[in-house]
Amino acid sequence: MQPVPVLARYSGVRDATQLLVAGLEAEDMVIQTMPDVSPTKWHLAHTTWFWETFLLRPYLPGYREFSSQFNYLFNSYYNQIGARHARDERGFLSRPTLDDVLAYRVHVDEAMSRLLAIDHGAQNTALRQLVELGLAHEEQHQELILTDIKHVLSHHPFAPAAFAGPAGGAGEADAGPCNWIGFDGGVVEVGADEDRFHFDNEGPRHQAILTPFALADRLVTNRDYLAFVEDGGYRSAGLWLSDGWAQVEALGWTSPLYWRKCDGRWEEFTLHGQQALDPDMPVIHLSYYEASAFAEWSGARLPDEREWEHGAATRRSVDGRLCRPGQSAHPAVTPAHRAGGAGPRQMFGDAWEWTRSAYSPYPRYRPAPGAVGEYNGKFMCGQFVLRGGSCATAPGHVRTTYRNFFPPATRWQFSGVRLAKDI
Amino acid sequence: MQPVPVLARYSGVRDATQLLVAGLEAEDMVIQTMPDVSPTKWHLAHTTWFWETFLLRPYLPGYREFSSQFNYLFNSYYNQIGARHARDERGFLSRPTLDDVLAYRVHVDEAMSRLLAIDHGAQNTALRQLVELGLAHEEQHQELILTDIKHVLSHHPFAPAAFAGPAGGAGEADAGPCNWIGFDGGVVEVGADEDRFHFDNEGPRHQAILTPFALADRLVTNRDYLAFVEDGGYRSAGLWLSDGWAQVEALGWTSPLYWRKCDGRWEEFTLHGQQALDPDMPVIHLSYYEASAFAEWSGARLPDEREWEHGAATRRSVDGRLCRPGQSAHPAVTPAHRAGGAGPRQMFGDAWEWTRSAYSPYPRYRPAPGAVGEYNGKFMCGQFVLRGGSCATAPGHVRTTYRNFFPPATRWQFSGVRLAKDI
Amino acid sequence: MQPVPVLARYSGVRDATQLLVAGLEAEDMVIQTMPDVSPTKWHLAHTTWFWETFLLRPYLPGYREFSSQFNYLFNSYYNQIGARHARDERGFLSRPTLDDVLAYRVHVDEAMSRLLAIDHGAQNTALRQLVELGLAHEEQHQELILTDIKHVLSHHPFAPAAFAGPAGGAGEADAGPCNWIGFDGGVVEVGADEDRFHFDNEGPRHQAILTPFALADRLVTNRDYLAFVEDGGYRSAGLWLSDGWAQVEALGWTSPLYWRKCDGRWEEFTLHGQQALDPDMPVIHLSYYEASAFAEWSGARLPDEREWEHGAATRRSVDGRLCRPGQSAHPAVTPAHRAGGAGPRQMFGDAWEWTRSAYSPYPRYRPAPGAVGEYNGKFMCGQFVLRGGSCATAPGHVRTTYRNFFPPATRWQFSGVRLAKDI
Amino acid sequence: MQPVPVLARYSGVRDATQLLVAGLEAEDMVIQTMPDVSPTKWHLAHTTWFWETFLLRPYLPGYREFSSQFNYLFNSYYNQIGARHARDERGFLSRPTLDDVLAYRVHVDEAMSRLLAIDHGAQNTALRQLVELGLAHEEQHQELILTDIKHVLSHHPFAPAAFAGPAGGAGEADAGPCNWIGFDGGVVEVGADEDRFHFDNEGPRHQAILTPFALADRLVTNRDYLAFVEDGGYRSAGLWLSDGWAQVEALGWTSPLYWRKCDGRWEEFTLHGQQALDPDMPVIHLSYYEASAFAEWSGARLPDEREWEHGAATRRSVDGRLCRPGQSAHPAVTPAHRAGGAGPRQMFGDAWEWTRSAYSPYPRYRPAPGAVGEYNGKFMCGQFVLRGGSCATAPGHVRTTYRNFFPPATRWQFSGVRLAKDI
Repeated sequence: MQPVPVLARYSGVRDATQLLVAGLEAEDMVIQTMPDVSPTKWHLAHTTWFWETFLLRPYLPGYREFSSQFNYLFNSYYNQIGARHARDERGFLSRPTLDDVLAYRVHVDEAMSRLLAIDHGAQNTALRQLVELGLAHEEQHQELILTDIKHVLSHHPFAPAAFAGPAGGAGEADAGPCNWIGFDGGVVEVGADEDRFHFDNEGPRHQAILTPFALADRLVTNRDYLAFVEDGGYRSAGLWLSDGWAQVEALGWTSPLYWRKCDGRWEEFTLHGQQALDPDMPVIHLSYYEASAFAEWSGARLPDEREWEHGAATRRSVDGRLCRPGQSAHPAVTPAHRAGGAGPRQMFGDAWEWTRSAYSPYPRYRPAPGAVGEYNGKFMCGQFVLRGGSCATAPGHVRTTYRNFFPPATRWQFSGVRLAKDI
Repeated sequence: MQPVPVLARYSGVRDATQLLVAGLEAEDMVIQTMPDVSPTKWHLAHTTWFWETFLLRPYLPGYREFSSQFNYLFNSYYNQIGARHARDERGFLSRPTLDDVLAYRVHVDEAMSRLLAIDHGAQNTALRQLVELGLAHEEQHQELILTDIKHVLSHHPFAPAAFAGPAGGAGEADAGPCNWIGFDGGVVEVGADEDRFHFDNEGPRHQAILTPFALADRLVTNRDYLAFVEDGGYRSAGLWLSDGWAQVEALGWTSPLYWRKCDGRWEEFTLHGQQALDPDMPVIHLSYYEASAFAEWSGARLPDEREWEHGAATRRSVDGRLCRPGQSAHPAVTPAHRAGGAGPRQMFGDAWEWTRSAYSPYPRYRPAPGAVGEYNGKFMCGQFVLRGGSCATAPGHVRTTYRNFFPPATRWQFSGVRLAKDI
Repeated sequence: MQPVPVLARYSGVRDATQLLVAGLEAEDMVIQTMPDVSPTKWHLAHTTWFWETFLLRPYLPGYREFSSQFNYLFNSYYNQIGARHARDERGFLSRPTLDDVLAYRVHVDEAMSRLLAIDHGAQNTALRQLVELGLAHEEQHQELILTDIKHVLSHHPFAPAAFAGPAGGAGEADAGPCNWIGFDGGVVEVGADEDRFHFDNEGPRHQAILTPFALADRLVTNRDYLAFVEDGGYRSAGLWLSDGWAQVEALGWTSPLYWRKCDGRWEEFTLHGQQALDPDMPVIHLSYYEASAFAEWSGARLPDEREWEHGAATRRSVDGRLCRPGQSAHPAVTPAHRAGGAGPRQMFGDAWEWTRSAYSPYPRYRPAPGAVGEYNGKFMCGQFVLRGGSCATAPGHVRTTYRNFFPPATRWQFSGVRLAKDI
Repeated sequence: MQPVPVLARYSGVRDATQLLVAGLEAEDMVIQTMPDVSPTKWHLAHTTWFWETFLLRPYLPGYREFSSQFNYLFNSYYNQIGARHARDERGFLSRPTLDDVLAYRVHVDEAMSRLLAIDHGAQNTALRQLVELGLAHEEQHQELILTDIKHVLSHHPFAPAAFAGPAGGAGEADAGPCNWIGFDGGVVEVGADEDRFHFDNEGPRHQAILTPFALADRLVTNRDYLAFVEDGGYRSAGLWLSDGWAQVEALGWTSPLYWRKCDGRWEEFTLHGQQALDPDMPVIHLSYYEASAFAEWSGARLPDEREWEHGAATRRSVDGRLCRPGQSAHPAVTPAHRAGGAGPRQMFGDAWEWTRSAYSPYPRYRPAPGAVGEYNGKFMCGQFVLRGGSCATAPGHVRTTYRNFFPPATRWQFSGVRLAKDI
């Protein structure tokens, strides 16, 4: 099979971004419901700014910037690129309007098509790597667009749906029992090879020692988690990490982020609106604290990220329920039985899996030079690694060595849990 | 002169509301920059809800509500009308969209025209009073639309203008010196008569005793206030009320809300964008604390509200710079000399004038029965009275007995100061 | 009767201060439980600093200050006296120790006795006025010592008593029914005469117009207030001022500050420890918001401060339950029937009475010159007037014209309520 | 050499605790300056409660508790032991007084001497382990007593000293240059053996793979760190972890916790009072963020905790500047040259060394059963490991495998930094 030409891939990713927001109103795209959430409009502009800043400005001769104000407005966190607008005030940006942002996208896409048609000689490799980074970056924001608009709509008193119609997969199957798959451990290799695209935090590839362990062969379901809730999980301090219990008490958590009990029945807010809780679906929108407490209650633990990676390497392909906008069904998790094949199921897609590994540098890790070096390294503190992608992750984005990371109180991502244990 | 027919007056006020927002983008109208500020879209809907709730529902047979959700979304603070959306989350209301809200306005206007064409017999008087209240209410929100959108746009890093073109009146004249006008005091009558429309807080009319006093014959100007700033007014604890000084220290105030010093020159954010500070214009966007400290520094004091009312009664008409959208100039203050006639100038329009009177009930005051009784009485605590209207107040809205009120830290209103003293 | 010689009065007040704290541990006197509360040790030192600063330093030749650090540590809020320690960090002052503070008191008392033995000639009058101010100041802090230590001890999980033995008066009598006493109003005189000691905020004496009104002839009792609580008073938004309801919701108020329901029975924390609620006692530790909501629920209102003063002028003497430490009973309220005589009972002592008057300057009020001018005027914003003194007020301290003042959310003072109405 | 008999060891540790506080006033011991800090009195009681709860109650027949209230007051965080007083309100505990707490210590010490004189037969081993835990626990609180009282005294405006006289070691020597000591890495063993006392978080002993690295042969000094400060380290976002930079901006950090610049010269608050900054002393009171930024600025990094442990294993003994109260000098750091011997110097004592290792469970770690299992495991989230002890650590307390841990913003501990790098 021959590689997709880079311009086609560029266009495919850019189009996918806009497909995601096709059903939203201009007014939906302005709102920021918490500092972690960015308005849809901001994502549409920021991803465009990334191409303009790291590709067009340095590499396209004669490129004319769309607006002199956008570098200030749409730089996310790159200190080396200059001053920028405060993150928690993105919801105050009435201007540029959605129409202006869409025009900005057209302007940059047109320039990118010119850039990618040129032979850059000795710079071809560097440029190709930046394009790969830009594509991966835009795919990450595709997922954030979904998690952020879900948060925004959930704060509306009447909880409107982002997507019309029912979610794909609901009510069609049962998840079945959960089984353990054992691994011997020993000296293993983890981390990314140098010869294909990956983020700097995935390398260098290195050896690690694992003691014998087992992984659950599917994700924890709503049914599993409901048993924890109904057994008083949220009232039992002894199950929780100290910080987690403090959070439970301070914020009054009694269930996952989007669960609500209405007239005695559990419902869940989804991108397709408020729905009855489907017990066979993977539980999502858990914090690390909840994942850890659930594992403790289950007599198990969370996997180490190296265990997860070692287990995932037994899968032949990165298969699973990922995000394919414009196709029959919109982002939603699915029951485990749909993911077939040997070894643990649901390793990719459906829900990001919390590991018990703090997000730390691998041995001999050094950040990339320049502003793109701010991408990962400076966040290696206070966060935990998640693995495997979710139903909101773009196909082709995730891989065995991929390390996602969030602070332990994070709940607005599509984050779930797979159990592990020592054997 | 014969009274304007009520339907024409209704249409005039409703149209004026929409004229105010004609230059705004849909995205501008969603944003809430602090709990006191409501999105423009919310104001457009809330004023409409007021007509629906207090007029159409009880009085128009067969009236069909536009949406069953709007009573929850657009009730501001009427506990008797039922549960309502949290005030500080109005900026999360992406839906209804602006288009939906405009359709709501059309729906209600059409019904109101039917209601006002009917002879209601014995109910005519009650209805007429409610219409007057609704018109006054909508006019109040016209002013809030302006003060709120000014706050919203000021939080944008590039400070866009709400209105194109220059503000009316700028740079055309000088304010001239400030003179004192003396009053003998004695037993005076203040408060509103029963026989024309007024808010319940303006009555009952009653006697009060005033000792001899003088009022300044014009508002304090930017030039006057700048002398205070440059004399270290914001660094001199002894000039300030204790609460005011705490505020200055906590928030780092060094000038009125919308002043900024750029490259050594003072500028002011206005509804027409960022502009050089005009020294002849009345100073606006002062808190009570700043008004009080300025008065102390001036060797004077703020007027008592009864002194102000007694002084205003010497004017023959409610003249001054009020808000006339769609006419040549948009809301902006003007220098004092434009306001002519005998007695103190600028008593009406330009800037609300802080008085030193805490907002309290007049003797024998009782709130109106029913939900409209929540309009005023429950706010009689922790606020100060302002008098005279501003350049953002609708013509015909303000009168000699009119009592506006805000907490002493409030700065986002068009609030200024007139000095007074004992003689 | 001849006036008490000033040195004896000085010694009497100073001794009374120390009598109040005789039962406390050194450790009790260090603690600050909220910014409004000062540690006992701080009060003992601050009152001493007042004498040193305003009397000894300017008037006693050769006076040697006790410590060069104390001006910084024990200045409360006098900006003109210089920099000072942050109010909300008084609980961090381990040093000086209690023993050091007691030695400071001895040092200053000894110097004061020398000062008061000297004939100061032309300065005698000024000095005498400052001594009166110092005595009144120390008496105010005597009351604060009691309210503050009550707050401190109430935050201990086992709620220890400040004073051994039962409170005086408990369980001995019933309060009896509440009756109305009518007043005609008209032009009345209020405020203090120049010829005897008073705080500057009590003057100038001036005329006011009152319309006919009635005052309740006793304070509201725990029994009265309990009926409000049990009728859902704390759940009925319509009874509350807007700010008050916000406070109820934010802080979860369900009863007066020191009430607690234990095993279905109401108890009250007192300076004598946790006790069963006595229904005949005046209700105390109410905020203005609660006083106002109770009055609304009762179909009455709070008195205007001028009404209260006019009513109090009908009493022949300032009689009532005030604070007499060292005598048979410690500070505690008493039932109404103990206070006899004509006119309204319990006007003085027992509980400070919230009026509906915002704390504002009287006509032609000017603060005293110099640092003592910071005593009152700068607080005339955001507070309400209370009248009549409490069971923690020193005898001889309060008078008919006396204006106490606190912000409306204040509950840790001995504050109660007397009803009023228009007639 | 024969082991110290356990009762003598018990008495030695208990006496050392009281020696530490001999110079403090009762009032010093009540104060809590932030939630992380406990009052000295609380430490004195809590350590005593630990013996009472885990040793005397279960093992000494007929033991009579000192007070029924103390289990509530002095339980720190053991959920299994029952309800407890809020951590951030320990500064409100005026009672029990210091005298009461000292009597509590005598009561428990007397009972412990009886308990330790008994032969418990089959329970001897369990008991011995609990005694070791109790001793280690009390030693940990000895260090906290010092770090906490340092914080308390530093908040006094006149910064009093905890200990009279000069700190030992000041000004006597220079630290000399810093050299690198290389290590080959490979498969190494880390963690504690089962056969001697250690905390559960130090085990199980396990294999790890290290790549070649070097450790600095001494701690970073004030001189080293001052160069970072003066080079604009606190203003260079690019040197900092993202969370660290947020902290710098939010709290305005410009130097280590106890440094202050007075009249152009750097001073440092110590337990011996305010002193000129000694450039040869190890820098202390750094957060993880500051340690990390300094390492980045130095072109180095922080050690992994396994690297540190591997390097420390080259030392023959746990030597260094630890806390020996009652001896010639009180807790203070010393220059590096005093610590001699082969391999890296200052590995033990002087300052806890931040590692870049998040505090995580070792492979196959399980918390101890029962309430003592709450000692470590529930804190394995959001913290970083520090190694090697400080000048405030009891001799005999620390060891090669010892893992201390604190959140990355922590600065009030005696925390410093040793550099590492890949080779």
